[in-house]
Amino acid sequence: MPKKFLDVLLGEPLANEQGSSEKYNVPFGLAIMASDAISSVAYGAQEILFVLIVLGASAYKWLTLTSFMIIGLLVILTISYVQIIRAYPQGGGSYKVAKENIGDKAGLSAGSGLIISYILTVAVSASAGADAIVSAFNGLTQYRVIFVVSIIIVLMILNLRGIRDSSKIFAIPTYIFIFSMLFMILYGLFKYFILNIHPQPIYAVPEATEDLSIFLILKAFSSGCSALTGVEAVSNSVPNFKEPGQRNAKTVMILLAILILCIFGGTSVLAIFYTAVPITNGPTVISQIASAIFGSGVMYYVIQFSTAVILLMACNTAYTGFPMLMYIMGKDGFAPRQFTIRGKRLSFSFGIGALSLIACLLVIIFKADTHRLIPLYAVGVFISFTLGQFGMVNHWRRVKEKGWRKRAVINGFGAFVTLFTTVIILVEKFSDGAFIVAILIPMIIYLQLKIKSHYSKVAEGLSVSNIKLEKVNFKIKYTHIVIVPIASLTKATIGALQYAQSMSDNVIALNISTDKEAMEKLKKRWSKLDTDILLVARYSPYRTVVNPLLRSIELIANSAGENEKVTVIVPQFVTHEKFGNVLHNHTGFLIRETLLRNNNIIVCTFPYHLPNDYQK
Amino acid sequence: MPKKFLDVLLGEPLANEQGSSEKYNVPFGLAIMASDAISSVAYGAQEILFVLIVLGASAYKWLTLTSFMIIGLLVILTISYVQIIRAYPQGGGSYKVAKENIGDKAGLSAGSGLIISYILTVAVSASAGADAIVSAFNGLTQYRVIFVVSIIIVLMILNLRGIRDSSKIFAIPTYIFIFSMLFMILYGLFKYFILNIHPQPIYAVPEATEDLSIFLILKAFSSGCSALTGVEAVSNSVPNFKEPGQRNAKTVMILLAILILCIFGGTSVLAIFYTAVPITNGPTVISQIASAIFGSGVMYYVIQFSTAVILLMACNTAYTGFPMLMYIMGKDGFAPRQFTIRGKRLSFSFGIGALSLIACLLVIIFKADTHRLIPLYAVGVFISFTLGQFGMVNHWRRVKEKGWRKRAVINGFGAFVTLFTTVIILVEKFSDGAFIVAILIPMIIYLQLKIKSHYSKVAEGLSVSNIKLEKVNFKIKYTHIVIVPIASLTKATIGALQYAQSMSDNVIALNISTDKEAMEKLKKRWSKLDTDILLVARYSPYRTVVNPLLRSIELIANSAGENEKVTVIVPQFVTHEKFGNVLHNHTGFLIRETLLRNNNIIVCTFPYHLPNDYQK
Repeated sequence: MPKKFLDVLLGEPLANEQGSSEKYNVPFGLAIMASDAISSVAYGAQEILFVLIVLGASAYKWLTLTSFMIIGLLVILTISYVQIIRAYPQGGGSYKVAKENIGDKAGLSAGSGLIISYILTVAVSASAGADAIVSAFNGLTQYRVIFVVSIIIVLMILNLRGIRDSSKIFAIPTYIFIFSMLFMILYGLFKYFILNIHPQPIYAVPEATEDLSIFLILKAFSSGCSALTGVEAVSNSVPNFKEPGQRNAKTVMILLAILILCIFGGTSVLAIFYTAVPITNGPTVISQIASAIFGSGVMYYVIQFSTAVILLMACNTAYTGFPMLMYIMGKDGFAPRQFTIRGKRLSFSFGIGALSLIACLLVIIFKADTHRLIPLYAVGVFISFTLGQFGMVNHWRRVKEKGWRKRAVINGFGAFVTLFTTVIILVEKFSDGAFIVAILIPMIIYLQLKIKSHYSKVAEGLSVSNIKLEKVNFKIKYTHIVIVPIASLTKATIGALQYAQSMSDNVIALNISTDKEAMEKLKKRWSKLDTDILLVARYSPYRTVVNPLLRSIELIANSAGENEKVTVIVPQFVTHEKFGNVLHNHTGFLIRETLLRNNNIIVCTFPYHLPNDYQK
Repeated sequence: MPKKFLDVLLGEPLANEQGSSEKYNVPFGLAIMASDAISSVAYGAQEILFVLIVLGASAYKWLTLTSFMIIGLLVILTISYVQIIRAYPQGGGSYKVAKENIGDKAGLSAGSGLIISYILTVAVSASAGADAIVSAFNGLTQYRVIFVVSIIIVLMILNLRGIRDSSKIFAIPTYIFIFSMLFMILYGLFKYFILNIHPQPIYAVPEATEDLSIFLILKAFSSGCSALTGVEAVSNSVPNFKEPGQRNAKTVMILLAILILCIFGGTSVLAIFYTAVPITNGPTVISQIASAIFGSGVMYYVIQFSTAVILLMACNTAYTGFPMLMYIMGKDGFAPRQFTIRGKRLSFSFGIGALSLIACLLVIIFKADTHRLIPLYAVGVFISFTLGQFGMVNHWRRVKEKGWRKRAVINGFGAFVTLFTTVIILVEKFSDGAFIVAILIPMIIYLQLKIKSHYSKVAEGLSVSNIKLEKVNFKIKYTHIVIVPIASLTKATIGALQYAQSMSDNVIALNISTDKEAMEKLKKRWSKLDTDILLVARYSPYRTVVNPLLRSIELIANSAGENEKVTVIVPQFVTHEKFGNVLHNHTGFLIRETLLRNNNIIVCTFPYHLPNDYQK
């Protein structure tokens, strides 16, 4: 029954062979990959202006410069990532590039940075999206955290349904947002230059309060850099694309860069011409531009609403990128193996679940406060950018294919720029929360190395060489010592004893009683049995049964010879009533787990199904 | 390590033989039993006055009458409970009396009433005690719920340590409270009558706002009845007393009644002479009396502090009564069997834990608000009082011992009075929360009957008559079909296969692969083995391994003959690293639980301890 329900909720199971049709074509891939990158772009100009506005009216002049710096960075990153997609068609992004070309720890650093930023993408975007919705309806504020958590759960369910289904759902609002933004930019420029309409700015530009300094420009730049988070998702997900995967991924990467360029550049330009002023707790820069261009017409609301929706959709990038990254790390042994198992619906259920859980915890701990979450955000991304680029430099130096010098210089330049950016962000945002990331990354790396060493030890401990395989002795005949712990003589215990005596001539029935009367009764009933099985009955003055039982079994086990195997058969009656099991002591479970954990004893469970229930 | 820690926290284990020395003598028994009853007595006069004060100054006249009514009820209850202790030396109180003399359902009604009131005793007393402490330190209010929960946890730990230890701890504050209250009453009367000092009342008595009516008196009476909760604890715990248990219990019961009489009567009389006025959110009646008698001297603070402490101690009555009641019910099969097991330290660990858990939940749900919890409180107690007394009437009519008519009349009168009181409380407090109890009691009874019917069915299904015992065939030789599910050839799976072939000639190695390559590799490696064991390898196009595995096993099991037993041996490697198990799939566990639940298959686990870990 619950299984059926899950099938309805999450969709029908899919066979392995259906896998390839579950992959992205270019339009769906773009929709999936774009939302995170593009939603942060929408706020790029505003974040730069918030820093520069202390310069007064000349802020707009320097906005142009800062925007150019960021667009320059975008171009470098795009070229670099196209090179990564070409060199790594099997996906992996910065993690894989840094790991293969620099070393495990560099790869894990890049990977940890990405893990943190994926989780924060979900927490921040869901919180910001909820903010937009909640602020529209007064009185909902107190339910914000529950609301954000619900959003994450819905996204989790949608993603558990599988890849294609969710891309269908998510493609629509992403494209609505993209096209309405592009339309606004074109119409805004048309209105300004062709129609020559120059509306009065809504807010007055404040007077200058500070002088221009290189530090101010750097601060503005580091704030604007958050616009570039999300561009790495494509290179991580190359295997998710339809064939030819590599080419499709490159196309999506370039389209994405062009979209970022247009929307970020366009909104910056419009902010200058329409003199949008950053206002704390006031209308956003985008909102000011939209109302200057469209008044309070339908298009204004389309822009506002699709901005809200795209924030929710941005979470979804993480739902694609995170499970894929964990899959790759899991295959390498740096993440728990559970991340490498595809669910019945071909999605990485464990990764999706883990992402949702951690993001929900973050939301609850930070009370869905985006301002406290955002500073953690960009650091991780830029660390992975930097390591990925340095890795590419090594890659080109290693493969030495045609034109490698040029490519190495491009990536080297990119590495230098992103390293510089990382340092700026770390310094500017350190006390705002970037320090948390600086602590977390080494901790995650330590954990990953521990996991790897554990898996290596287990594999080594279990492995049998092909040569040894041929020498395994399958003619060995063990003699069996069989112990059956019993509390009284019931149908279940008698069944287990019959089974035991058919396995070995050396069977011991073991009884531990806390009640002398019950023990005498058992002995009396035992004497009626027509059997050679030895009954060992012990009285336990302390009221525990399990410990003396385990000690007795261990005593017998320790006296076993080399070719003797000790088997414990635990009789267990099975009731098919609902909740029936809650009403019984789970002594059997305890015995089994303790014996397996500490001894070389085989533990069997002999089930006895209660007859009157079993007919059901 | 954690076991050692528990021993330090909870005390050393105690043997069964130490049991009798863990029982109460009279002074400790009184301390344990008194706190609940006496702490509610302390507020009896105040609660009556809160109702009567609408009469103005004549409230004090009618306080005398109402107090007499309640003292009359106390005398009836005491005589009745002494009779119950005499008739039921093995303990059980109202539950047992009603069950044996009226019927199962009457017994369960009385028991459910007691269960509810025990849980509420903990929740209410801990909350009220915390209130007293918290109100002394400003700024702690926001931590109230956590504080109350901590108190309950501390009480739980103390009670898990065992009976005598906790009575030692709890005896001191109970006696401080009792003696300081008695001293206050005596000194107050001495000061008033002998020294002739009549201090001015602190608060003016308000003008009358209502006329006297029978309903007002009844309401005052029903409020005052909460003073009598807790008197039943003694009769439930007769077996907890030192020998002669019955006589000691009777002595404690009578001493307790005398204490209630003195403290309740005394505070009522002092309230009249010193004209204490009930003030909402102001000083309590006891506090007013104490300050009128002692000024702001040391004795005033002793009274106030010991009042706060006794409230916390009152919880402890429930920690004695509830596990004992659940033990008796568990022995009868009406409560989960876990309640009948004494822990290593001779206390009923499960009952103590369950009580703490439910009380904590109630505290959290009701935000530790005593005013919302109190109305639920008295109903349950008085229902059990009433049923206990009616049961005693039937008891005397049945046994017809010397003087039975007189005793039956006493209990009959008591039954009538408590029934009347129950109706008054239910009506007066219905909408305040008594309706919750009216809903809960039938639900609890239903659950108890369900539990009983489950245990009866299981016992019936498992039982083997002595005659059948002699006929059990222990010469039967089953042939074994042994299935070993394997993923690859490792030391663990090879060990399991060797064990399997020593058990039977009919061994099947079963492999389900989601990866065709891995399956081919396994087949190739298998061909190197020098064995006759059949390898059945199946490819699963869906990525689940467990379901196809279970289906294959069931298919084999269904084809088994009458004297053939199917055994599944699950190889399981055991890692001794911390958290090591978290990193592996628990397929073995899933297979075992599903097979046992649905099939007549014996499931064995073959442990392989990883060698490099095992040396530790």
